[in-house]
Amino acid sequence: MSNNKNSESIIQDPVNGPIKINGIFKEIVDSHYFQRLRNIKQLGLCNLVYPGANHTRFEHSLGTMYMAKQLSNVLNIDDDKPLLGALLHDIGHMPFSHSIEDVFYKYYKVTHEDLTKKIIMGEGIFNDSDIPEIIEKYGYNPKDIAGIATGKSKKYRLYSSMVSGPIDVDEIDYLRRDAFYCGVTMGHIDHMRLFNTVTINNNNIVGEEKSIPTLESTLITRILMFNSVYFHKTCRVAQKMLGIAYELYKDKSIDDLKLFDYSFLEKLNSGNTEIIVNNILNRKLFKVIWREKYTPENYNIIKERMSRFNDDQYIIDIIPPLYFAGKERIKNYFSVYYRGEIKRIDNVSSLARSLYREVDRRNIIVSVGPQIKDISF
Amino acid sequence: MSNNKNSESIIQDPVNGPIKINGIFKEIVDSHYFQRLRNIKQLGLCNLVYPGANHTRFEHSLGTMYMAKQLSNVLNIDDDKPLLGALLHDIGHMPFSHSIEDVFYKYYKVTHEDLTKKIIMGEGIFNDSDIPEIIEKYGYNPKDIAGIATGKSKKYRLYSSMVSGPIDVDEIDYLRRDAFYCGVTMGHIDHMRLFNTVTINNNNIVGEEKSIPTLESTLITRILMFNSVYFHKTCRVAQKMLGIAYELYKDKSIDDLKLFDYSFLEKLNSGNTEIIVNNILNRKLFKVIWREKYTPENYNIIKERMSRFNDDQYIIDIIPPLYFAGKERIKNYFSVYYRGEIKRIDNVSSLARSLYREVDRRNIIVSVGPQIKDISF
Amino acid sequence: MSNNKNSESIIQDPVNGPIKINGIFKEIVDSHYFQRLRNIKQLGLCNLVYPGANHTRFEHSLGTMYMAKQLSNVLNIDDDKPLLGALLHDIGHMPFSHSIEDVFYKYYKVTHEDLTKKIIMGEGIFNDSDIPEIIEKYGYNPKDIAGIATGKSKKYRLYSSMVSGPIDVDEIDYLRRDAFYCGVTMGHIDHMRLFNTVTINNNNIVGEEKSIPTLESTLITRILMFNSVYFHKTCRVAQKMLGIAYELYKDKSIDDLKLFDYSFLEKLNSGNTEIIVNNILNRKLFKVIWREKYTPENYNIIKERMSRFNDDQYIIDIIPPLYFAGKERIKNYFSVYYRGEIKRIDNVSSLARSLYREVDRRNIIVSVGPQIKDISF
Amino acid sequence: MSNNKNSESIIQDPVNGPIKINGIFKEIVDSHYFQRLRNIKQLGLCNLVYPGANHTRFEHSLGTMYMAKQLSNVLNIDDDKPLLGALLHDIGHMPFSHSIEDVFYKYYKVTHEDLTKKIIMGEGIFNDSDIPEIIEKYGYNPKDIAGIATGKSKKYRLYSSMVSGPIDVDEIDYLRRDAFYCGVTMGHIDHMRLFNTVTINNNNIVGEEKSIPTLESTLITRILMFNSVYFHKTCRVAQKMLGIAYELYKDKSIDDLKLFDYSFLEKLNSGNTEIIVNNILNRKLFKVIWREKYTPENYNIIKERMSRFNDDQYIIDIIPPLYFAGKERIKNYFSVYYRGEIKRIDNVSSLARSLYREVDRRNIIVSVGPQIKDISF
Repeated sequence: MSNNKNSESIIQDPVNGPIKINGIFKEIVDSHYFQRLRNIKQLGLCNLVYPGANHTRFEHSLGTMYMAKQLSNVLNIDDDKPLLGALLHDIGHMPFSHSIEDVFYKYYKVTHEDLTKKIIMGEGIFNDSDIPEIIEKYGYNPKDIAGIATGKSKKYRLYSSMVSGPIDVDEIDYLRRDAFYCGVTMGHIDHMRLFNTVTINNNNIVGEEKSIPTLESTLITRILMFNSVYFHKTCRVAQKMLGIAYELYKDKSIDDLKLFDYSFLEKLNSGNTEIIVNNILNRKLFKVIWREKYTPENYNIIKERMSRFNDDQYIIDIIPPLYFAGKERIKNYFSVYYRGEIKRIDNVSSLARSLYREVDRRNIIVSVGPQIKDISF
Repeated sequence: MSNNKNSESIIQDPVNGPIKINGIFKEIVDSHYFQRLRNIKQLGLCNLVYPGANHTRFEHSLGTMYMAKQLSNVLNIDDDKPLLGALLHDIGHMPFSHSIEDVFYKYYKVTHEDLTKKIIMGEGIFNDSDIPEIIEKYGYNPKDIAGIATGKSKKYRLYSSMVSGPIDVDEIDYLRRDAFYCGVTMGHIDHMRLFNTVTINNNNIVGEEKSIPTLESTLITRILMFNSVYFHKTCRVAQKMLGIAYELYKDKSIDDLKLFDYSFLEKLNSGNTEIIVNNILNRKLFKVIWREKYTPENYNIIKERMSRFNDDQYIIDIIPPLYFAGKERIKNYFSVYYRGEIKRIDNVSSLARSLYREVDRRNIIVSVGPQIKDISF
Repeated sequence: MSNNKNSESIIQDPVNGPIKINGIFKEIVDSHYFQRLRNIKQLGLCNLVYPGANHTRFEHSLGTMYMAKQLSNVLNIDDDKPLLGALLHDIGHMPFSHSIEDVFYKYYKVTHEDLTKKIIMGEGIFNDSDIPEIIEKYGYNPKDIAGIATGKSKKYRLYSSMVSGPIDVDEIDYLRRDAFYCGVTMGHIDHMRLFNTVTINNNNIVGEEKSIPTLESTLITRILMFNSVYFHKTCRVAQKMLGIAYELYKDKSIDDLKLFDYSFLEKLNSGNTEIIVNNILNRKLFKVIWREKYTPENYNIIKERMSRFNDDQYIIDIIPPLYFAGKERIKNYFSVYYRGEIKRIDNVSSLARSLYREVDRRNIIVSVGPQIKDISF
Repeated sequence: MSNNKNSESIIQDPVNGPIKINGIFKEIVDSHYFQRLRNIKQLGLCNLVYPGANHTRFEHSLGTMYMAKQLSNVLNIDDDKPLLGALLHDIGHMPFSHSIEDVFYKYYKVTHEDLTKKIIMGEGIFNDSDIPEIIEKYGYNPKDIAGIATGKSKKYRLYSSMVSGPIDVDEIDYLRRDAFYCGVTMGHIDHMRLFNTVTINNNNIVGEEKSIPTLESTLITRILMFNSVYFHKTCRVAQKMLGIAYELYKDKSIDDLKLFDYSFLEKLNSGNTEIIVNNILNRKLFKVIWREKYTPENYNIIKERMSRFNDDQYIIDIIPPLYFAGKERIKNYFSVYYRGEIKRIDNVSSLARSLYREVDRRNIIVSVGPQIKDISF
């Protein structure tokens, strides 16, 4: 029996079962900024569509660490650094996760990855973070861990790609977890089979030939989850309404980034933003009045038509494509051994290839608030 | 295809799959007081122990209605009233559900059942409820529905016992749902097998002989869930700390009962209660320093010893027994047909009988806040 | 409590939970030809690859009936005929299900659908079947039921298409069941969501618009299951070896069609077929020596090369395409309402469309027995 | 990528997911006597009650090995011997597993543990076993492995107790597996939580204090599974009928112990045992006519009454108690740390204690074949 059981906890995760933490892991989990993640919902306002989707970045972070551990085991990696990167990869998330990250960016020019780095290193508005101290106490370098956590470390390229790569433990955890809590059982990822059929080649994780069916299934699950959850039109309407509220909000401050979901909401639930926040809370959402394929012409037409209304009374939402140049959501550059050679998955799987053709599905969706009543198309 | 698809929704429940609602059910779900349940966590502060336990009374209410429907189907009951009672049975829950219901009771002399009745009938501080109007519009009587919802209807005794009886749809849903979100897989309820092996006798639901194994398993699951979740010592400490905070809080008002979990917490997160609320949020909970079997002597000894400290710096918690006179938590009066006669389950199942012996397990657990440091036992 | 509990059984199905049967359903299940299905494995010799795949046509038939009941409920169909068709749809299966159906066809010119009809109507070698008598006793016409069971009834077109159509209860049960027993969790079918989003139009089952994501997921699951299970190369090798054994077998008789899997195997486990049967049993299967894309040229080349060996020492297997003219395995003619019009799924879903492009994946796989040792390519 | 992928297989287990085997494990799995386990059903004739229960000793053996690996990992045991013992622990099972083990014992004076030892060591009728050779090739001693496999090794007491002890990997696998295939979801074992809360003390596996709830749940699951599956009265009737058939069978030989389930059945399906075997196959089982609590008096009365009939026309079955002197089925000698001391589970868990009281539940069940018609009680 270990000497110091106080320094060990078992946390029960509905998705992965018991997760044991101790030492540096336990100290980080107990720290203020990590505990704060209990109050940041993983899927923002998606619980208005999927009432079970109240899960938080707290458990997702633990799950990502656990996945990193499973993957490390099968790859015979005996190092805590990728696990620490996994545990901390989302520490910088703002209220409501991705929901209004674009609006925050507009005002403060930071992404959640930037904030992740700052919290891990104790910089800027996060100079009160005790995480760098914990990391150093155990002999690690906060900068190294920040690099792995944000997927940008050149020093630890393999670890970095485990946390953020063509197939990474972050994505595997969130796809499984979000499906679990949304009750969306359409896709499924057999992560243990996947982990058992990958190997390391030249500092990269590549699949063996027998990984192909599991990879195909993972690619498909991504698409199904984007279609059904992440880009669900009602989820997006609710998020855009919250964005409108923040635009209207008069007391903006960079410290808003530190708030919990609900303390943020309570702040906005007054003054000129009270009505819109209350409508979100009562699920009185903008109604979709128009939906067409995205073309620049269609976009110009609808923009022109809506211009006579106030900005805060309607939403023109262009559902992003699943793949796009800057940052591909559906990553196809995963490589596999195929008859002795290393090839990209879309070169050996006709199913993967056919999925990539499903690209130009961007839609424009227009929704309007209660003030706009007499519109017709 | 039905004419009016707008009046129909399918809500995806991770525990039960798709739940279709329309007509009166949809109108109630869309009403303010029902939407409010999205912000009342089913298990209060238990998510500090089980990080997945963020589920709400909203989905539990839908699930209870769904269970009532499944049970109605197998019993050939074709009436919406038990479903309405099931849907509304928890509408009156206060912030953090049962967590500090006893403290609220001390100040306002109401239970959540009282409030359920008031919201369904539009009485008192809930005279703004639009639920009675919806109920009447569809030709039902709010008083009837309130009686079924609170399990006290004499007019509709069978329906009432479906919602609140020896084996009821409320309990079946919460046991399954809480286990799902806590990741506590120790017990399991095969509700479909149970429903398929019960029948109606003299306005009561009784089991057929072949229901016995499923009933035994249900009784056991209850006990396991009480031990592992509902009476988990750390959950109780967090709840008691919240109770202390409310006791200390200076601006108490009966309108607090209408608050969401988080707006309640934001209110308390200031002034003389800020520190304790922050400690809850950061999971800096009172530490257990003493644990013994409950006896009046033990209780007096410990009460005496702790009396030199301030009331708000320690907790003496007597874990309630699972069965007790006033209101049995583990109900043993379920009846089954056994070789042609109706008998109580504990008369025909030696397993049920042996479980009832597991009664006198009350413990006293003492925990203290950070101000109390020099205590030793 | 019903008077005659003897006439009712609850059968526990790991995939669907408790299934209640009584009356005509119970009598059919108790009959000889239905009990016989306990001894016909659903997936033939696939258990050599997936050791859990020992499930039988018996439980699949019950499950298909149960699915028909669920679908009938949501479509408000109150008629036992589609359920009877579903229960009996596979009653005519031969030893090892589809494994060597082609070899049996060569000798006896019958398919399992032909035998299904014969058993339901008590014709030919199945004139000892007591099923027609049971059907008539309950006032139904065996010919009607046979028509529904084989999916060919013109009189009951809707019922027929429930059992065998673009999306049918047979397929939904076997995809779910085979995935369950193989442990292949890659795809998933949310049948309850699917059933809740279809409707009847002009005697056909069509999807509502909101059925599209669930349909896409079903189409994908089909493809994944064909790739991973039904067309698994090792499963096919084992089945082809069994086919070779039957070709070599000297005492062929049409009565072989009535045998159980194992009594068939015991018969073949002697004389000149003993060695090959023993190799199957000990999983000493032919080894794959060559694998190329199917082209007529490739086929001719390999056929020529192998011709110097004995027919029973090698297998040239052309994996069939998933779609082909005669009988489409992946049916794309399912229709959905889309913005008020009825359209084929591949006209409204770019994902469905892209999947259909994944057609020309036929491979030639050559495997050889132990006698062929000195071959090289 | 490992050099020799031919020596590695991934076997998909529906209960545990992918199981990787290589080296000695793969060679043993490929050997004749291990492949033979594919044809020995885990639960004998229980599939007549639970139609999904067609799983075999083959997959249970793999699963037991996998559980041993998981347990070894958390206990930091880096040795293949306990895994080999787990893999081989059931290699000696006879046709239909435990179903008629008592009848075989009567004629041949061997248990399946005896045969396990013989196969592992290549003795007696199993001198054709190639398993000892494989074991020696990898540098192990067959006798050591046989000792661990049968749970009797004194040299490797810890390993032995992992395979067969108060809480062992054999039992954990079969309880989970049997529940899965029977669809009996009443109990559940959280094996990962259990493994994470045990430790080694003085060469024994003991639980930490936090293991208690999981242990209680495991004890309960055992009881539920015995009640619902292993001692299900209809399963027992079918097994006893098979025993009668073997008693009547004229060509008994010790080589019968080597047969598959089905080749054994085919042998018996002729001559004077054809009728009874056919009745088993068609599920025309003996009918229960009498059921009472076991007392010596009751037993004598019923024995006397039935004595006028032929031995092979009735069954007097005394359901064994769950605990009994010779070999306890429900083992209560598991030890846990409790407040610093090692104590037996029933000394610290009132639930465990109460379960042990559920002892004297032995029943006498009398069932009769079709020849006995005029009996009345």
